[in-house]
Amino acid sequence: MLRDRHRTRRRSSDETREETNGEHLLVDDANKYKKFRTRTLSTVWMIGGFIFILYLGHLFIWGMIVVIQILMAKELFALAARAQREKQLPGFRLLNWHFFFTAMVYVYGRFLSKQLVNSISSDRILTQLFSGYIKYHMLICYSMYIIGFVWFILTLRKRSYHYQFGQFAWTHMILFVVFTQSAFTVANIFEGIIWFLLPASLIVINDIAAYICGFFFGRTPLIKLSPKKTWEGFIGASIVTVVSASLLANLMGRSLWLTCPRKDLSIGPLYCDPGPLFKPKTYELPSWFPFREVNILPVQSHALVYGLFASVIAPFGGFFASGFKRAFRIKDFGDSIPGHGGITDRMDCQMVMAVFSYIYYQSFIAPLNVTVDEMMDQILRTLSVEQQMELYRELGKVLL
Amino acid sequence: MLRDRHRTRRRSSDETREETNGEHLLVDDANKYKKFRTRTLSTVWMIGGFIFILYLGHLFIWGMIVVIQILMAKELFALAARAQREKQLPGFRLLNWHFFFTAMVYVYGRFLSKQLVNSISSDRILTQLFSGYIKYHMLICYSMYIIGFVWFILTLRKRSYHYQFGQFAWTHMILFVVFTQSAFTVANIFEGIIWFLLPASLIVINDIAAYICGFFFGRTPLIKLSPKKTWEGFIGASIVTVVSASLLANLMGRSLWLTCPRKDLSIGPLYCDPGPLFKPKTYELPSWFPFREVNILPVQSHALVYGLFASVIAPFGGFFASGFKRAFRIKDFGDSIPGHGGITDRMDCQMVMAVFSYIYYQSFIAPLNVTVDEMMDQILRTLSVEQQMELYRELGKVLL
Repeated sequence: MLRDRHRTRRRSSDETREETNGEHLLVDDANKYKKFRTRTLSTVWMIGGFIFILYLGHLFIWGMIVVIQILMAKELFALAARAQREKQLPGFRLLNWHFFFTAMVYVYGRFLSKQLVNSISSDRILTQLFSGYIKYHMLICYSMYIIGFVWFILTLRKRSYHYQFGQFAWTHMILFVVFTQSAFTVANIFEGIIWFLLPASLIVINDIAAYICGFFFGRTPLIKLSPKKTWEGFIGASIVTVVSASLLANLMGRSLWLTCPRKDLSIGPLYCDPGPLFKPKTYELPSWFPFREVNILPVQSHALVYGLFASVIAPFGGFFASGFKRAFRIKDFGDSIPGHGGITDRMDCQMVMAVFSYIYYQSFIAPLNVTVDEMMDQILRTLSVEQQMELYRELGKVLL
Repeated sequence: MLRDRHRTRRRSSDETREETNGEHLLVDDANKYKKFRTRTLSTVWMIGGFIFILYLGHLFIWGMIVVIQILMAKELFALAARAQREKQLPGFRLLNWHFFFTAMVYVYGRFLSKQLVNSISSDRILTQLFSGYIKYHMLICYSMYIIGFVWFILTLRKRSYHYQFGQFAWTHMILFVVFTQSAFTVANIFEGIIWFLLPASLIVINDIAAYICGFFFGRTPLIKLSPKKTWEGFIGASIVTVVSASLLANLMGRSLWLTCPRKDLSIGPLYCDPGPLFKPKTYELPSWFPFREVNILPVQSHALVYGLFASVIAPFGGFFASGFKRAFRIKDFGDSIPGHGGITDRMDCQMVMAVFSYIYYQSFIAPLNVTVDEMMDQILRTLSVEQQMELYRELGKVLL
């Protein structure tokens, strides 16, 4: 009985809230259009800025990812913080950023050092410095973490234990989510911009296609979490996304700027042998076709898998985010982008996709690219000269 | 005013609780001794069992770690679960174990496969099977994780969002803590039992020494979180632990069973060249000393660092655990060990130590052991025959 009454009360309060929202929109119609204009305008700015950054190159895309990370962390830290509580805990927010910085060093430190070693191989002292850093990377990060850990314990205040432990757990969750995806994204970028751009575009395409298909054909509700999503939108968007994936891969696969890997931190033009994935194969078509022949890149078959994942699994990232927002009764994660809500709201599916892209790339595409150069590099880095001699003799034996 | 009153009320309720506890102990004195006997008995059983498992070898120690992990996860899962809630969510607990199993495959799958490849190198088909697994390890784990992720979203129930998201976050935190440390522990074990046994013993020694030193000399309280701990106990234990570390390393360093690495899953006796860290150097002592000379192993200097960490930093793991217990108003994490509380209560400092040991080992000790064999192995595994030929020629050029 009691629980039933509780339920009814809650439901009615939800209804009231929706009603007031509805009224608000009706009364303030000018405001609605203003909001739409703001949203469109910031979308145009975002896409324009994004294309400009793509043109500038790998290093700048990385910079963009870092900025997004900082904004996301800021939004999410603020979500769980209680201003009242924090007043009694001076410097407690700083601890969050200490852990953020530690995660930053952990995720990017080794990668950055490797790229730097490749960039400045002429300077012996700096090369040795960064090689040395790579060796002790884990130890340095662990020490930084331990400093934060001890700091946390020493600043525990008697009546705030529950709040502080909650914040500690929340910070770790945020950093885990924010950094897992962006570490993978940055790794993708330097393997060739296409491995970052293709999946990221597919998410955007799937989002828009789902909206349009749902708008015109939507009838059957898909999932309770997002009442506006329909099966028709979901399936229509899947078809559009998979087709776009193949076409986009064909287009992007022809640009050296997008397909060549970047092994250092240089920013100039990029030349490389595009590799077998990007060599077009010509197929002749039956005579009744408008075109005589078609050029297919092998990378297009991988693109189909990306398209399928972007349209079938990645939307669950969005469902997760909207479930989370309902659970904690918030509308948006923040207000970083005018008209869009927080930057976290735009990143939900991108995160799921970025991890997938990285793992797919590492499992199926990277093994095609293991080079003799990399192995030589490793040998010269880790073995002493005597060991190198021994290896040379042993390898000779095996090969003969 | 209001806050002050609230404070007073809380303090008085704490006092009441302590009083009733005190009364309880005074009245039920027989019970107190019974508890002490239980605790001593289970300590003896634990230590005996532990030594027996050490004697059995690497594979069995690993098994022990896995059992501890399962017990810890069980305790911690139960801590946050609400029976009332779970009744309305059939199968929700199973999801926790799905994530547990995924973490298990992620952490041990690759390691186990490598060891198996080394164990059964005579069987070509199985070797290829496990090598294939290693290649797709990440993809398999990611797929398992995505299944859990989608499963979670599809089982979200309208009035339980908040509870379910809380559980989801909690599960991730638990798995992260439990698996980080045990993955590192298992890696340590196969590098040589000493790298697991020495740090683990130092934690136990430090615990006991802090208790004894505190009992006899304790006056100055150390930290508010654990009112029974004193500066005298802390400093005394540090001295005892650092000295024990050096002595124990000298003792353990002479046993091949403890120092040799194990590269496969065999369980028989172990022979190896002990390596420079374990070769005793003889130093003569001044004539007025009772001994004429002393044998020092180089590993003892590393042991000093372990001792210092075990006595200065690792105790913060314990402070963290007691802070956590206060924050959530629980006495113990569980009741797996009669008289001791939960197994998690015994593992708090061990976890901090295990991660440190692994990182210290990898940073300072492993580089001494990179072998030509391992490099050969990698070359034969990843390069094609033509690439091996090219590498051979390039290496020849560099060496000449």
